[in-house]
Amino acid sequence: MRDDQPTADLGFARVDLDRERRTGDPEVVYADGKTPEQVVAILARLHDAHPTRAVLATRVSAEAAALVAAELPSAVHDAEARAVTLGPLPTPQGRVCVVAAGTSDGPVAAEAALAAHVHGAGVERITDVGVAGIHRLFAVRDRLDDADCLIVVAGMEGALPSVVGGLVGVPMIGVPTSVGYGASFGGLAALLAMLNSCAPGVTVVNIDNGYGAGVAAARIARRAR
Amino acid sequence: MRDDQPTADLGFARVDLDRERRTGDPEVVYADGKTPEQVVAILARLHDAHPTRAVLATRVSAEAAALVAAELPSAVHDAEARAVTLGPLPTPQGRVCVVAAGTSDGPVAAEAALAAHVHGAGVERITDVGVAGIHRLFAVRDRLDDADCLIVVAGMEGALPSVVGGLVGVPMIGVPTSVGYGASFGGLAALLAMLNSCAPGVTVVNIDNGYGAGVAAARIARRAR
Amino acid sequence: MRDDQPTADLGFARVDLDRERRTGDPEVVYADGKTPEQVVAILARLHDAHPTRAVLATRVSAEAAALVAAELPSAVHDAEARAVTLGPLPTPQGRVCVVAAGTSDGPVAAEAALAAHVHGAGVERITDVGVAGIHRLFAVRDRLDDADCLIVVAGMEGALPSVVGGLVGVPMIGVPTSVGYGASFGGLAALLAMLNSCAPGVTVVNIDNGYGAGVAAARIARRAR
Amino acid sequence: MRDDQPTADLGFARVDLDRERRTGDPEVVYADGKTPEQVVAILARLHDAHPTRAVLATRVSAEAAALVAAELPSAVHDAEARAVTLGPLPTPQGRVCVVAAGTSDGPVAAEAALAAHVHGAGVERITDVGVAGIHRLFAVRDRLDDADCLIVVAGMEGALPSVVGGLVGVPMIGVPTSVGYGASFGGLAALLAMLNSCAPGVTVVNIDNGYGAGVAAARIARRAR
Amino acid sequence: MRDDQPTADLGFARVDLDRERRTGDPEVVYADGKTPEQVVAILARLHDAHPTRAVLATRVSAEAAALVAAELPSAVHDAEARAVTLGPLPTPQGRVCVVAAGTSDGPVAAEAALAAHVHGAGVERITDVGVAGIHRLFAVRDRLDDADCLIVVAGMEGALPSVVGGLVGVPMIGVPTSVGYGASFGGLAALLAMLNSCAPGVTVVNIDNGYGAGVAAARIARRAR
Amino acid sequence: MRDDQPTADLGFARVDLDRERRTGDPEVVYADGKTPEQVVAILARLHDAHPTRAVLATRVSAEAAALVAAELPSAVHDAEARAVTLGPLPTPQGRVCVVAAGTSDGPVAAEAALAAHVHGAGVERITDVGVAGIHRLFAVRDRLDDADCLIVVAGMEGALPSVVGGLVGVPMIGVPTSVGYGASFGGLAALLAMLNSCAPGVTVVNIDNGYGAGVAAARIARRAR
Amino acid sequence: MRDDQPTADLGFARVDLDRERRTGDPEVVYADGKTPEQVVAILARLHDAHPTRAVLATRVSAEAAALVAAELPSAVHDAEARAVTLGPLPTPQGRVCVVAAGTSDGPVAAEAALAAHVHGAGVERITDVGVAGIHRLFAVRDRLDDADCLIVVAGMEGALPSVVGGLVGVPMIGVPTSVGYGASFGGLAALLAMLNSCAPGVTVVNIDNGYGAGVAAARIARRAR
Amino acid sequence: MRDDQPTADLGFARVDLDRERRTGDPEVVYADGKTPEQVVAILARLHDAHPTRAVLATRVSAEAAALVAAELPSAVHDAEARAVTLGPLPTPQGRVCVVAAGTSDGPVAAEAALAAHVHGAGVERITDVGVAGIHRLFAVRDRLDDADCLIVVAGMEGALPSVVGGLVGVPMIGVPTSVGYGASFGGLAALLAMLNSCAPGVTVVNIDNGYGAGVAAARIARRAR
Repeated sequence: MRDDQPTADLGFARVDLDRERRTGDPEVVYADGKTPEQVVAILARLHDAHPTRAVLATRVSAEAAALVAAELPSAVHDAEARAVTLGPLPTPQGRVCVVAAGTSDGPVAAEAALAAHVHGAGVERITDVGVAGIHRLFAVRDRLDDADCLIVVAGMEGALPSVVGGLVGVPMIGVPTSVGYGASFGGLAALLAMLNSCAPGVTVVNIDNGYGAGVAAARIARRAR
Repeated sequence: MRDDQPTADLGFARVDLDRERRTGDPEVVYADGKTPEQVVAILARLHDAHPTRAVLATRVSAEAAALVAAELPSAVHDAEARAVTLGPLPTPQGRVCVVAAGTSDGPVAAEAALAAHVHGAGVERITDVGVAGIHRLFAVRDRLDDADCLIVVAGMEGALPSVVGGLVGVPMIGVPTSVGYGASFGGLAALLAMLNSCAPGVTVVNIDNGYGAGVAAARIARRAR
Repeated sequence: MRDDQPTADLGFARVDLDRERRTGDPEVVYADGKTPEQVVAILARLHDAHPTRAVLATRVSAEAAALVAAELPSAVHDAEARAVTLGPLPTPQGRVCVVAAGTSDGPVAAEAALAAHVHGAGVERITDVGVAGIHRLFAVRDRLDDADCLIVVAGMEGALPSVVGGLVGVPMIGVPTSVGYGASFGGLAALLAMLNSCAPGVTVVNIDNGYGAGVAAARIARRAR
Repeated sequence: MRDDQPTADLGFARVDLDRERRTGDPEVVYADGKTPEQVVAILARLHDAHPTRAVLATRVSAEAAALVAAELPSAVHDAEARAVTLGPLPTPQGRVCVVAAGTSDGPVAAEAALAAHVHGAGVERITDVGVAGIHRLFAVRDRLDDADCLIVVAGMEGALPSVVGGLVGVPMIGVPTSVGYGASFGGLAALLAMLNSCAPGVTVVNIDNGYGAGVAAARIARRAR
Repeated sequence: MRDDQPTADLGFARVDLDRERRTGDPEVVYADGKTPEQVVAILARLHDAHPTRAVLATRVSAEAAALVAAELPSAVHDAEARAVTLGPLPTPQGRVCVVAAGTSDGPVAAEAALAAHVHGAGVERITDVGVAGIHRLFAVRDRLDDADCLIVVAGMEGALPSVVGGLVGVPMIGVPTSVGYGASFGGLAALLAMLNSCAPGVTVVNIDNGYGAGVAAARIARRAR
Repeated sequence: MRDDQPTADLGFARVDLDRERRTGDPEVVYADGKTPEQVVAILARLHDAHPTRAVLATRVSAEAAALVAAELPSAVHDAEARAVTLGPLPTPQGRVCVVAAGTSDGPVAAEAALAAHVHGAGVERITDVGVAGIHRLFAVRDRLDDADCLIVVAGMEGALPSVVGGLVGVPMIGVPTSVGYGASFGGLAALLAMLNSCAPGVTVVNIDNGYGAGVAAARIARRAR
Repeated sequence: MRDDQPTADLGFARVDLDRERRTGDPEVVYADGKTPEQVVAILARLHDAHPTRAVLATRVSAEAAALVAAELPSAVHDAEARAVTLGPLPTPQGRVCVVAAGTSDGPVAAEAALAAHVHGAGVERITDVGVAGIHRLFAVRDRLDDADCLIVVAGMEGALPSVVGGLVGVPMIGVPTSVGYGASFGGLAALLAMLNSCAPGVTVVNIDNGYGAGVAAARIARRAR
Repeated sequence: MRDDQPTADLGFARVDLDRERRTGDPEVVYADGKTPEQVVAILARLHDAHPTRAVLATRVSAEAAALVAAELPSAVHDAEARAVTLGPLPTPQGRVCVVAAGTSDGPVAAEAALAAHVHGAGVERITDVGVAGIHRLFAVRDRLDDADCLIVVAGMEGALPSVVGGLVGVPMIGVPTSVGYGASFGGLAALLAMLNSCAPGVTVVNIDNGYGAGVAAARIARRAR
């Protein structure tokens, strides 16, 4: 069943079914602050409207994931990314490379990777290449250079985008994470560092916002030659 | 004369002549904090190394612009962008659209536009389409949709990227400006707003950093199909 | 029984029974940080003093709501608004329209709506009209224009008041909410955005302060022609 | 000559001639950051479009005021408010009372008063009634009570709205000013104080934003019974 | 048993037994972050050294209070102040008046009152006289005027010290509390307000620091004529 | 000529002539932001009302001081304190000791000393006893102990009140100064340090607020036995 | 068994086995945010690579410590420091002295001491010598002077490094701790104080970062004559 | 003439002549905020007390430098470092290496280098090795490794210490500079980055505090084997 009303009123939410027509991508469920029942209902409604293309829910709690598994058995749960997809993933166009500085940045990197994939890009992940052991980064330089868009995930001092941006000229999106303590102020130190990067062309998203980076990177990669 | 040493030591600066090979783009002169003589010398050295492609100096003071005009007569001064180029501009590939919310955001938008052009993209500007008169934005919707990358420049509450991001799915870079007063805290309000945009896929650069947005947008646009 | 002492001393609180005479509205119970017993006692005392007009308690916990239900059976609990009223609601004068950007802003919008109602205004609610799907806002433009006062509730980047303020000239109160994460800093991003709105005449209350917005809006609406 | 194009393109600005139709009030010139010539040109264009109703420019420098006086001799300069009007002021409807805590808050109070007047309200000013000499406030209580809307202007600790809000129930808009030093942080202390006022129904605008308060107050007052 | 070593080493702490000689007052136990056993041990050691004068522990948890009750049966627990005293209270000299704006400021006011008493002053408390019902403050003006030192406790916008400081010239110490939400930022709004008070001579202590205010006030009061 | 109206309206200011009756001290002129003519007029009016007791103007610019000298020849200018007095200084009661950490803290210390003197206390100054050369502090320990109230002035890390507060039990007021750079943030570092002092009973005033400290200290000292 | 691959890929982490060759010290496990199983696996792998020299895990939870005890019985748990070592501690070279202001700073001081020991220095601890009882500090002056590097740990106002830095010229590292409340803002007050110390040569690490201070101090001490 | 009084009272300052005995290094003149005459007088007095060892003044303005040249002809002015020395420089012990990320960091690096030299260490400088062209850093790796202490100076995102700290294990002091704009907040971004460095053992001084880093580094280097 295909939809033609632009908005679906579920009582607790008005789902924007017109968004794919305007922007090329369906609406996504930000599950934090919604009940498991609401997450299931919105996912189901979005899937009805977009049956041939995967829809996505992010920040899915364990309880919500369990109810999704019970009610929507074809849904797929990505535990590391704390996300759920429903429907067939698109054929990848272009290549996004997700680079993470440390092990603890894993969940944010996983969310970015899944979001990029759901939004139509091929995705590769490179992990644990923080600047304190920079030889690990040089070993993967060619893979960085071959990507259509880079997502660089780092907490603490957030230095990785500056170093990567001096090595390759690929479009790059920095994702500061809340990994750190004390004067990291919940990711503020990494955010400010990325905004002040001396490497030209680094763009930044909100702290821990792997999803936003994934959407932006997919849009860049899938229109690349 | 073409260069093959990776670094040119001018005494007061070590110019990275290898950057174009690594990243595809030559080094750029950030003129703020340098003397007019230094700006001239670095520009000249970069032009020697990259004679067939324009090199760029940003944040150029009136004094520095005057000395550049005297010493490097083929240089071109863009007064609105407070920038200078030296050498032939590249043939544009792809199209960047620079959208500015208000008249006072003009210098930052101009810097973004020039930087995108110097880095190889075609550029179009749309000005004074702030969200308090949103009909002006709808009138240009098609031009937004046709771009390969959008740069959206706004001060004060920085709301424009969220509205644009709900209308089109083109890759977008928000540039917060320091336009505002009181609790705008020199652009912090606009920066936070853009980082927290509810529109998916908005990426952000530093306050007033038109240059960085231009580089990133050109890299996205020039590899677009 | 009508009161004529200006202050009622309950031991743990001194209830300002004179406030209605000075300002037109009785004191309200802010239940957060009070025991369920204290909430019940103050509500009962206020009701004694103002028997013909509903009195209000806000930020009422589930425990306090349960005790109120047991001890004051005529009280009405509004679970979404986390609030309780006791006594007959006034005949509405004027019309307040409460507009919320997202589903998660619901509790704050509900508190605003109930407070406006208890303070004497008629109230209408419009939900889920965030700026990323702005067509939803245009669909309700006439309802906005017909109100005597607007309350506009939004978290994240807090852009909705700016857009609404460009569409209609109705008095408007923005309520930033703590919905968001990372660099939203508990609602600070939305607060700053609303304070810096480029739309003329936007006024603002504290983060999540639906109550304050409701009182202000009712005072504006009920004196409107 | 009356206008019917919604936007007037002056090259350096696109003037929103449709705003009065949408919101009831014409666009206003924020002169800060514009050249004297630009201020003159926009004022003239707005006056052409709204010949029977005063248009306003705020934050007008001495230089800009001089050029306005030379080029638009019928314009009126309010030096205390740092503002200029052009065209006949409207017949006042309703009454706004502007209350200022200290002498140094004068310019902001004057801007608020003029903006309220230009936007159609009658205006009364009460000055120098700070909370450290609170008897001065009680002496004017009746005048506060008779207003349709109060604008309360204060710097330093910003306590005046709380005290006024406990005395009368008139709609009130607090304007924090940058008057103060040290830990006032350019008006932040007063802004936070007003946002946290224990008096119900206080709304707030940006630091030093007399203009915004005046617009909001006029809209409230002119629709009052 | 009287002590003559200046420091008593308990292993987990070095108790400063010389402080009374230097400053006139014994050391006090800040119990937060110490185990119940440690609180008991330090209290006991201080009591040994100062048998004729009450010693004090503040921020005492319920568990620590229970163990103190079991181990040191002559200790007295002040539940509202979350504090314990051991030994005879001194004969009061001078009079401290503790004024609190709201019910929720009670624990901080109680800690201040007890600390002032333990440090040698007579203490009177006045509660719930916030600025939104300022007639309650005028009713107690004489009691304020008769004190040797005032402690004024307030959260939210922290306006009470400014109003009190305009009524009387008694030495005054403001105590901002963390009562509030949103942009109160855990008491920061009240702290900044008190630091910027327009009333002359207001001094301030840390957020929620009733103890510090009590010590300072007692030292002022007990040396008053 | 003695005054009996409580308020003197000078047009640009309403002078609170009743303040001495309420609080024991006349109003003081904060000259910053006032014209030299205004400073002269208010000083003259206050002197008329309080002819037998010195009145004070603080933050007096060189221009204002020159006009005061010309118009009010009996006025006395304290250049270090940037202040002016007019009228006979009171007979000192009690003793205030003003201690400053460094040479650059001199102007703030001088303002504190003069304010204390004008408000009725005897004053002694001790300078350049910063904690990095702590032997200088021990050399003056007896003078600290003999005071009725201490004012401790320090910028940078603001450590001096903590050290002094461990040596003597005299009432103490810390004055953070804006001396410092980088992460001193205009005195914020010193302010936070003093608010968090581990020495009991330290109270604090605003950054650079020597005047406020002087008033508070004089009130404490002049009522001391 | 000695390793010669520079990186060991454990799936969830890439252990930098080359770090000792580059920097002289093996990688350390920051256990916060890792599962007990991960902590055990990385510790075991590091021990394999560095069998003759102790490896370290910091911020070890009770659960992780229990699993380490079960799986790696030769590991040693330092409960105060919340850390675990595995393998023989090196022969100490040079002497680090860890000075803590208060009892609550104990865990951070213990982490610093253990880290310094593991990284090759001899370590001495001095506790509870806060500036409010400064005689305790003078009593240990010789021990401070004899050290090769000092680590000075303090929360609240963070004044101890300034006082120590005025007494001795030994290299010194300040560690601000999160001990405090209210306007200590989680250690920010102490951090700013140490950064602004008037004593020459004070260097600082992140809030609560005992580990970092220990590494730096050991590197200084072990190369001292 | 050699001194034996510990303090020299110049009226405007008390010079700590005992500091060299306690800490090994004489007092230094921080010239900012002092008159040229005061700078000359203190320098002369310090030179009298320490005739065989250079004394130092930092943050010396052009005016002060000119007066020093006239009055103390043997003084040496280091224009880049904005500093003056008087007396023979010590024989260098150990080696400090000062590494700067960019040209604009030059003055801070120069101040650090001179301070290290004056305090007894040999000094080497490496400039313009920012992380965006990291090959320049690898080219000097051996020189980094051979130093006894590193001073790493960087503005903007402050990433250089993290990269250097992953390459060598030499004691390192990071100096954040105020180079940058927008969200660099005067060096705050670089400061936070360095405090959160993922490289072990990085210590930090205040923004632009080259002097402090130089003192600390010299103390480390001159006691190295």
